Amino acid sequence: MARARTREITSSSNSLVKVYRRALAEGTTRDGWLAVEGPFLVEEALAAAPAVRTHSILISESGGAKFGQLLEQLSAEGEAVQVSDRLFEQVAQTQNPQGIAALVELPRYNLESILTGRNLLLLLACGLQDPGNLGTLLRSAAAFGASALCVLPETVSPFNPKAVRSSAGAIFHVPIFEGLPAREVLPRLRAARVCIVAGDRSSPTPLDQADLRGSLAILVGREASGLPPEIAREASLLLSIPIRPGMDSVNAATAGSIFLYEAARQRGFKY
Amino acid sequence: MARARTREITSSSNSLVKVYRRALAEGTTRDGWLAVEGPFLVEEALAAAPAVRTHSILISESGGAKFGQLLEQLSAEGEAVQVSDRLFEQVAQTQNPQGIAALVELPRYNLESILTGRNLLLLLACGLQDPGNLGTLLRSAAAFGASALCVLPETVSPFNPKAVRSSAGAIFHVPIFEGLPAREVLPRLRAARVCIVAGDRSSPTPLDQADLRGSLAILVGREASGLPPEIAREASLLLSIPIRPGMDSVNAATAGSIFLYEAARQRGFKY
Repeated sequence: MARARTREITSSSNSLVKVYRRALAEGTTRDGWLAVEGPFLVEEALAAAPAVRTHSILISESGGAKFGQLLEQLSAEGEAVQVSDRLFEQVAQTQNPQGIAALVELPRYNLESILTGRNLLLLLACGLQDPGNLGTLLRSAAAFGASALCVLPETVSPFNPKAVRSSAGAIFHVPIFEGLPAREVLPRLRAARVCIVAGDRSSPTPLDQADLRGSLAILVGREASGLPPEIAREASLLLSIPIRPGMDSVNAATAGSIFLYEAARQRGFKY
Repeated sequence: MARARTREITSSSNSLVKVYRRALAEGTTRDGWLAVEGPFLVEEALAAAPAVRTHSILISESGGAKFGQLLEQLSAEGEAVQVSDRLFEQVAQTQNPQGIAALVELPRYNLESILTGRNLLLLLACGLQDPGNLGTLLRSAAAFGASALCVLPETVSPFNPKAVRSSAGAIFHVPIFEGLPAREVLPRLRAARVCIVAGDRSSPTPLDQADLRGSLAILVGREASGLPPEIAREASLLLSIPIRPGMDSVNAATAGSIFLYEAARQRGFKY
């Protein structure tokens, strides 16, 4: 069955090959489909069906020998395309391409309907620049049952290939809203009675002394400079992660992950 | 005073320039001095004097215009060396060199004397491969008052330039023991009555249900494969970070940082 859908492309000027090359470099196609590379992410995408739709899989000859069984999980609407190892290497963006990539459509989510839920746990990335940090944070968000990740403007894209790799498949499981400005999203959160908290190392309240069990949005700022003051001002609660005096801070993704862990702990790890 | 110690080097074949080039690529000189690049790390090294000894600072012409005041913090035994911007770029390993680097001698620590302390908080890196993860973990170790970091064999070097950058200066504050094999360090920890804990996602005991207030060593495993079974077997306590069912795990540095946070929380953040 899978074989019947597999077609072969030999030309580097083929339009699908061009789409892959561009999308693997930029993270998404013009249609907003996500491009992922490597057997781990392709398998995670296929496992997240039907919410996540894998439109096509690009596989090299030697990739087919190793990961051909993944093609059997491709739905009937999906297409498998085989290329030579050499052509795959031209398309791939990783240093040691493993011979498999996919174009994937993430589900569309509605922030309003998410905001009708109870005991929400939202994450707002406000200016993070390192894609590895954003991906790591997304991975923690999925692990600790976050309801959604809002990526504010002037933040690295969650669909950046490095962010997607660092998310280790979490990209397929957490609703992501990108590009909503703070002045739009923060009032919507407040209207939904979501408590907005921000890390602030000078706050006298350690995060474990605050009640984080109700609906919560955690603001995570930029690596070196933290939250812009105009956004920090909007938080209802400033909380510190109490660290050893004289030490500066923890990594931005680590700080966000510790907030998520602390909230999940207070909720008894009920997801 | 600083000026008097500044000498100028113009030749790329000068032996100190060669030492810098090699050390900035590899992390350390043959003598084991750490090579750091950029004003942030140089400033952190100088601020950690006298425990940390800055032997020399290499500064470019334009670096001197911006960061020249840092030279005034250099002790009388230290040497400042000025080179042209072009020569600095040949020596530097970063993409956009900022024109300042240093050779730094870290303090020597004695594991036996550390092990005589009370309520120890030790971290054992067992096979981590990503220098960014090890550096991030080291940063958390400093923040949460860890007594030491032991880096077991087959783990990326903590003196790898990327690990040092990710540590954000924590490398100057946490005693590091590198290369001790598990079969040597684990019995010494047990002899010192240090409880050895390891993360294990299948453990029925969530980490917040265990008492982490006594002397503790936290084992952190390799990114994808976790702890080698022969090391996990040595742990007295296997603890899970309870995550949402169906999700796989959090990032290795994040997991280690959450263990450190939880231990610090249970100790009332007393450092």
